[in-house]
Amino acid sequence: MTTATMQALRKPRPEPGAQIESITIPQAQPGEVLVRVRAASICGTDLHIYHWDAWSASRLHPPLTIGHEFCGVVEALGEGVSGFAPGDRVTAEMHVACGHCRPCRAGQPHVCQNVRILGIDRDGCFAEFVRIPARNVWKIAPSIPEHYGAIMDPLGNAVHSVLAGPIAGCTVAIIGCGPIGLMSIAVAKACGCSTLYATEVSSLRAEAARKMGADLVLDPREANAPARVLAETSGAGVDVLLEMSGSAAGIRDGFHMLRPGGRASLLGIPSEPVTLDLLGDVIFKGATVHGIYGRRMFETWMQMTALLEAGRLNLEPLFRERLDLADYAKAFRLLEQGQAGKVLLIPNGNS
Amino acid sequence: MTTATMQALRKPRPEPGAQIESITIPQAQPGEVLVRVRAASICGTDLHIYHWDAWSASRLHPPLTIGHEFCGVVEALGEGVSGFAPGDRVTAEMHVACGHCRPCRAGQPHVCQNVRILGIDRDGCFAEFVRIPARNVWKIAPSIPEHYGAIMDPLGNAVHSVLAGPIAGCTVAIIGCGPIGLMSIAVAKACGCSTLYATEVSSLRAEAARKMGADLVLDPREANAPARVLAETSGAGVDVLLEMSGSAAGIRDGFHMLRPGGRASLLGIPSEPVTLDLLGDVIFKGATVHGIYGRRMFETWMQMTALLEAGRLNLEPLFRERLDLADYAKAFRLLEQGQAGKVLLIPNGNS
Amino acid sequence: MTTATMQALRKPRPEPGAQIESITIPQAQPGEVLVRVRAASICGTDLHIYHWDAWSASRLHPPLTIGHEFCGVVEALGEGVSGFAPGDRVTAEMHVACGHCRPCRAGQPHVCQNVRILGIDRDGCFAEFVRIPARNVWKIAPSIPEHYGAIMDPLGNAVHSVLAGPIAGCTVAIIGCGPIGLMSIAVAKACGCSTLYATEVSSLRAEAARKMGADLVLDPREANAPARVLAETSGAGVDVLLEMSGSAAGIRDGFHMLRPGGRASLLGIPSEPVTLDLLGDVIFKGATVHGIYGRRMFETWMQMTALLEAGRLNLEPLFRERLDLADYAKAFRLLEQGQAGKVLLIPNGNS
Amino acid sequence: MTTATMQALRKPRPEPGAQIESITIPQAQPGEVLVRVRAASICGTDLHIYHWDAWSASRLHPPLTIGHEFCGVVEALGEGVSGFAPGDRVTAEMHVACGHCRPCRAGQPHVCQNVRILGIDRDGCFAEFVRIPARNVWKIAPSIPEHYGAIMDPLGNAVHSVLAGPIAGCTVAIIGCGPIGLMSIAVAKACGCSTLYATEVSSLRAEAARKMGADLVLDPREANAPARVLAETSGAGVDVLLEMSGSAAGIRDGFHMLRPGGRASLLGIPSEPVTLDLLGDVIFKGATVHGIYGRRMFETWMQMTALLEAGRLNLEPLFRERLDLADYAKAFRLLEQGQAGKVLLIPNGNS
Repeated sequence: MTTATMQALRKPRPEPGAQIESITIPQAQPGEVLVRVRAASICGTDLHIYHWDAWSASRLHPPLTIGHEFCGVVEALGEGVSGFAPGDRVTAEMHVACGHCRPCRAGQPHVCQNVRILGIDRDGCFAEFVRIPARNVWKIAPSIPEHYGAIMDPLGNAVHSVLAGPIAGCTVAIIGCGPIGLMSIAVAKACGCSTLYATEVSSLRAEAARKMGADLVLDPREANAPARVLAETSGAGVDVLLEMSGSAAGIRDGFHMLRPGGRASLLGIPSEPVTLDLLGDVIFKGATVHGIYGRRMFETWMQMTALLEAGRLNLEPLFRERLDLADYAKAFRLLEQGQAGKVLLIPNGNS
Repeated sequence: MTTATMQALRKPRPEPGAQIESITIPQAQPGEVLVRVRAASICGTDLHIYHWDAWSASRLHPPLTIGHEFCGVVEALGEGVSGFAPGDRVTAEMHVACGHCRPCRAGQPHVCQNVRILGIDRDGCFAEFVRIPARNVWKIAPSIPEHYGAIMDPLGNAVHSVLAGPIAGCTVAIIGCGPIGLMSIAVAKACGCSTLYATEVSSLRAEAARKMGADLVLDPREANAPARVLAETSGAGVDVLLEMSGSAAGIRDGFHMLRPGGRASLLGIPSEPVTLDLLGDVIFKGATVHGIYGRRMFETWMQMTALLEAGRLNLEPLFRERLDLADYAKAFRLLEQGQAGKVLLIPNGNS
Repeated sequence: MTTATMQALRKPRPEPGAQIESITIPQAQPGEVLVRVRAASICGTDLHIYHWDAWSASRLHPPLTIGHEFCGVVEALGEGVSGFAPGDRVTAEMHVACGHCRPCRAGQPHVCQNVRILGIDRDGCFAEFVRIPARNVWKIAPSIPEHYGAIMDPLGNAVHSVLAGPIAGCTVAIIGCGPIGLMSIAVAKACGCSTLYATEVSSLRAEAARKMGADLVLDPREANAPARVLAETSGAGVDVLLEMSGSAAGIRDGFHMLRPGGRASLLGIPSEPVTLDLLGDVIFKGATVHGIYGRRMFETWMQMTALLEAGRLNLEPLFRERLDLADYAKAFRLLEQGQAGKVLLIPNGNS
Repeated sequence: MTTATMQALRKPRPEPGAQIESITIPQAQPGEVLVRVRAASICGTDLHIYHWDAWSASRLHPPLTIGHEFCGVVEALGEGVSGFAPGDRVTAEMHVACGHCRPCRAGQPHVCQNVRILGIDRDGCFAEFVRIPARNVWKIAPSIPEHYGAIMDPLGNAVHSVLAGPIAGCTVAIIGCGPIGLMSIAVAKACGCSTLYATEVSSLRAEAARKMGADLVLDPREANAPARVLAETSGAGVDVLLEMSGSAAGIRDGFHMLRPGGRASLLGIPSEPVTLDLLGDVIFKGATVHGIYGRRMFETWMQMTALLEAGRLNLEPLFRERLDLADYAKAFRLLEQGQAGKVLLIPNGNS
C-alpha cells in the first residue's frame, strides 16, 4: 500500500446522490483480503441507491462506499488468511452469508436469512481498495480479461438462471434482454440449448440479443409473442423460460410460452405483486418454477469460471463505456437513458 | 360376463344432473382390459360435472358414464393384452396419455397435451363394468383393502405432491385439509417429515387432520397462520409447502410460511387468477415451486402401492359413507354439504 | 410397396457368418410401422453376432435378419397407428420395452427386464424393409442428414452418458475413443464442458478425437495418463469421467483421474469382472457412478434430436465407408481391422 | 473453566496403545468453541488407531488426544464467535473442510481434499474438553438425549447413505449390520422405505437388526442371500442397496440383489481392491452408485436433527455399555470381542 488515503464513491447521507471522497484506505481484518480495484461495473441496484428509492432508504445506513461488481488484484491479507497472495487477480461474491441460518446449513447460502452485502450493508467496491472476507474472494485466471472479471456478479445471475435445471437440447424463451438477459443468451447457447427465442422492447437491445445468439427476437408490443413462440414450436411451447424482465405482462407472456412439464427461472424484479393464471400456467402444466436470487456459493462461480476460461462466452456486445470513477455522474446518466450495456468505472489511481 | 346389460350412472345430456341407465356391457377392445367395478369413489370434479359448471360444459360431450376413482376385478382381456388375468384385483390411472407429444416423450405423460380422461372424455367407472387401456390398469395386492384401492387416484395426487422434492427431515405446511390434504398428512408423516403444520377452516376437517397426524392445525380465519408458523419455526419458515386449498388467500398464506430455499407443491385449484408477491415469496426466497397435476406414470403408483402394501398409511379417518350406486343423489348431497371424507358408491350387481 | 420380396442380411443358422437372402417383405402388424431402410450402420455388437461369440450363441435364435442402426422412410402403417404418415423420415429405438416390469413402471424402460431388441431378438434393419412398434419409431427433421440419422442409436449412447449428470462448466476425461467415445467428445463440447481430456491407443482414433474437439489426447501406453490429467487439473482431477473403453486398465485409469465428488458414466463393456480400488476411487471420493445402457426413452432421443437439428454436432470425422448391403463381408472386414469410423450399408433396392 | 488441567486419552507415541494423561485445558482460539465433553463414543477407526495399524501409522502424528464422536456443553467462545452461548448443548462435525478446494467450492466439503479430522489430525474428544472451529459445532435440542447426541457422527453416515437418493416407497437391502447398518435400518424405515432385507453373520447383530425394524434378516453364510431376496421381490431385486459391510463377498451379494435402474450407497470400507461384475451389476443394470464418506455439511446434520427431534428414530437397541473414560482399555476390549453396539466413554470430571 503506497498511500494512506484513497478515492471512493460514497453515499454520504440518506438522500439522493453520491460523491467522490478521499478516505482512509481500509485494513484487511482477520480473515479478510484487501483488494486493489482495477475496474468496477454499475448494477441497476446502484442506480436505485443513487436515486435513493424507497428500498434504498429502508436498507442502507450511510455513510457508505457503494458498488458491488468489480475485479482487482490482491493487495494484502488479513490475519489467518491462506490460499491467496498479493498480486492474485480476483473478483468476489459480495453477498456475505452468515453460515448459521437454515438456508446456509441446507447448502443454500445464496438465500441466507442474515446476508450482508458489500456496497449495500457495508463498504463496497467503487473505490481504489475494498476489504472482503477471504471466503468470498474468487481467483480468476489470466485468460479471463479484466472487463469480464468486472461483471461476474451479474454473469453469475445468468449462469444460475440457465443452469437451475436441464438446458442441453432444450428450447428456451428469454423475456427481457437487459444485461443479464443478454448474458443468459450466451450462456444458454454455450450449454447446448437448441432454439432460443427472446422478447425485448428496445431495438438496441434486440439487436444485441441477435448478436449474442438469439434465434428469434420478438417485440412484445407488436407481436403476440406467446402465440408466435407456440406456433414456432408446433404448439408445444418451450422447455425453459428465463424471466429477466420483472414486468407483469412479460412474466405472463413467458408462462404462456412454457410447455407442460417445462421449467421457469424467475430473476427479473417485479415492482409490485403479480397476477398469474396459476392454474393454467403452473398447476395444470406441471411446471417447475425456480426463484433465482444471487449466485450459488460457489457452484455457480465454478461453472461460470470454467465457461469463461474455456472461451465459451463472447460477452463483447455487452460493453459500452469505460469511464474514470470520477465521471460517475456521467455513467449513471448513461444508464438512466436506458438501452443496452454495462458501464465500467475505473478508479483513478489504478488505471 | 353374466348379463348383457349393466347399470351405469350417466350424464345423458349437456345439462345439470345425472341418472342411472341400463346400458350394454362394453367389450374390451384390442389392448384393453374390462374391469368389474367393486367400489367407486366420488371426486370433487364429479360434483362439478353433476352440476354442469362452465368447465364441464366446455369439456364433456354427453352421453357419458361418469366417474374415475374405483377398484375392481379383471373380467376380460382384449386382444393382445398380457400381464393380467381374470380375477386380478385392480385399479387404474384414468388419464390416458397419447405417448407422442413432447411431455410424453420427455417422461412426463401426466401432463400429456392430448390426454383423454375416463369419466370425462370417454365412459368412466360409475358402472358395473368399465373398459380401460391395459397400460393404465394397475394391479393391487390382497393386502390393500378395497376401499383404499378405490381412492388411489386422489391418494396418488397426495403422494405426487409430497414426493415432488425432499421430505425426510423436513418441516411441512399443508394449506387446506380436504381429502387430498388429509391424505398428504399421512403420506408426509410416513415419509419422515418432521413437524407438520396444517390450516383448515372446517372444524370437522381440522379434527380429521389431527387424527391423520398433523402436529398443529390452525384456523386461518382466527389466527395469523403465517406469523404463527414462523414463530414455531424460530422465524425460519417451513421447508415444504403443500398447497391443497386453491384459495388465493391460502396460497398467499402458504408462501409466507415457506422458508428461503424451500419448495412448494401447488395442487389446489384456484377458480381465478391469483395475485402473488412473486418477488418476496418466490424470487428473493430462491424457492422452487412445482405445479402438481395427476400422478406420475407410474413412479407415483409404485411409491403409493409400496406405502400401502407396507401398511404405512392409515387412511380410515377419511372414509364416511358407503352407498349403493343407485343412491348417487344422496352421495352428491352429502358432499355438497361439505365437510370431510370420501363417499364410496357400490355398483348394485357387484356388492 | 412395389415388390413382394426384399433382400436382407440374415443369420440363417446358429454358426458364424451371415448371408444375403431374398425374403418376403414383412407386413406392419397392429401398432407397428413398416419402414423402408435408406441407410444402416454396423455396431460392434453386429460383429460379435457375425462371428457368433458365446454371448450371441446364448441369446440369438436364427434364422434372423440382423442390424439395429438405420434411418429410413415410413412405407406403411399397421392398424391403430397414428402420428405417422408414409414418407416420414424416421429412425427408431430398437429396444422394445415391456411396459410392465418394475424398471418400466419406474420410468426406466431403457433397463426393462424383458426387453426385446430388433436385430437380436427379432428381425432387424439390415434389409430393404423393417417393421417396428410405432411407439419406438422416431421422426427426424429434414435438417438431419441421412447418415447422421443412421447412427442415432450409438449417438444416443453418447448423449445418455454425457447428460447423466452435470456437464456445463465441467472438466471431462473420456477413456477410449471408439465411435461412441468420439461422439461423446462432440456432445460434451456442445453441452458446455470445459477442458476435455481423452485417452486412446490407436493413433488414427487419437487424431479423430482431436478433430472432434478433445483438448488433449493421451496414449495410455506411453504416458502415465492419470498423473498427467491430475497435473493438468492442479491435482484436483476431472469433474466427469466417461468410460468408453471397457478395458479394466482403462476403467482404473479413469477412476484415478476423477476428482472427489465427481461423477462417472460407465458405458464400455468389460469382457470379464474388473478389480477396482473401490475404497480410494469411489467410497472415499464420494463419487457418483452411473451404469449406462441404451438410451433413455425418450428423453435422450429428444435431447439428441434437438442438438442435431440445431446443428451443434459435427460428426463428419466419424464416417468412413458407404457400401452396398451386398458388400457386407467387406464392411465387416473393415471393422475387424479396427481403427476409427462407422461403416454404412445401403440396401440395394433403396439407393 | 474451573481447573487448569484435564484428563485426556492420548496416543503419546507412534505405537500401539493409548493412555490417560493430565494435560492443560485448551483455550478456544479465534473462531473456535471450547466444549466440555459429557459423553463420547468409540468408532471402529479408534480401534485401528489404538492398535496402530498401517493406516494409522501413515496418517497420525502423536502425541494426540484421540476420539471424534461426542456430545457436550459449550464452555467458552473464541474471539469473533457468535451464535453460541456457554451452556448450549452441542455435538460437532469433526471433519474440518478447507473451504478452498474444488469439492469445497462445489458444495461437497464432505470430500474436501484438505480435510483435517479432530481426533486424527489434531486433538479430539476423548477428554474433558475439546476445542472445535465454530462452523463445525452443532447445537442439539433438549429433546435429543445425551447418548443419542454422542453418536450423531455415525448416525450421520447412515442418514447420508439412506438419503443419497429416493427412499420413500422403495425396497431396501442392507448388507452388514454393524452400528451404522443398524442405524440405517431405523433411518430407512422412518423415511418410508417399504420392505427392508438385511444380511448379517453375527446372530447378536441379526437380532438387533430385527429389533431396529428389518423385515427379513439373512445369514449370508447359510442362505443364498441374493437368490432369496430376488425370490422375495418376484425376481425384480431391490430398489436400494446400502452396503455397510466392506466385505468383497458382501458387496457382490448386494449388487446381485439390486434391481435394474436401482441405486447403491457404498459405505463399508473394503480392506483391499474388490473384483466386481461391473458389466452385469452396474452397466447393463443402469445402476447408480454413490460412494458415501462422512456427512454432507450440513444437509445431513439438518435431516438427522429433524428426525431425532421429531422422535422418529429409536436407537436404544444400539447401546451397550457406559464406562468411565479411565476404563478405556475395557471399552476397547469389548469392541474387539465384536458383536453389536456402541460403547460410551464418560470423562471423569464431567459425569
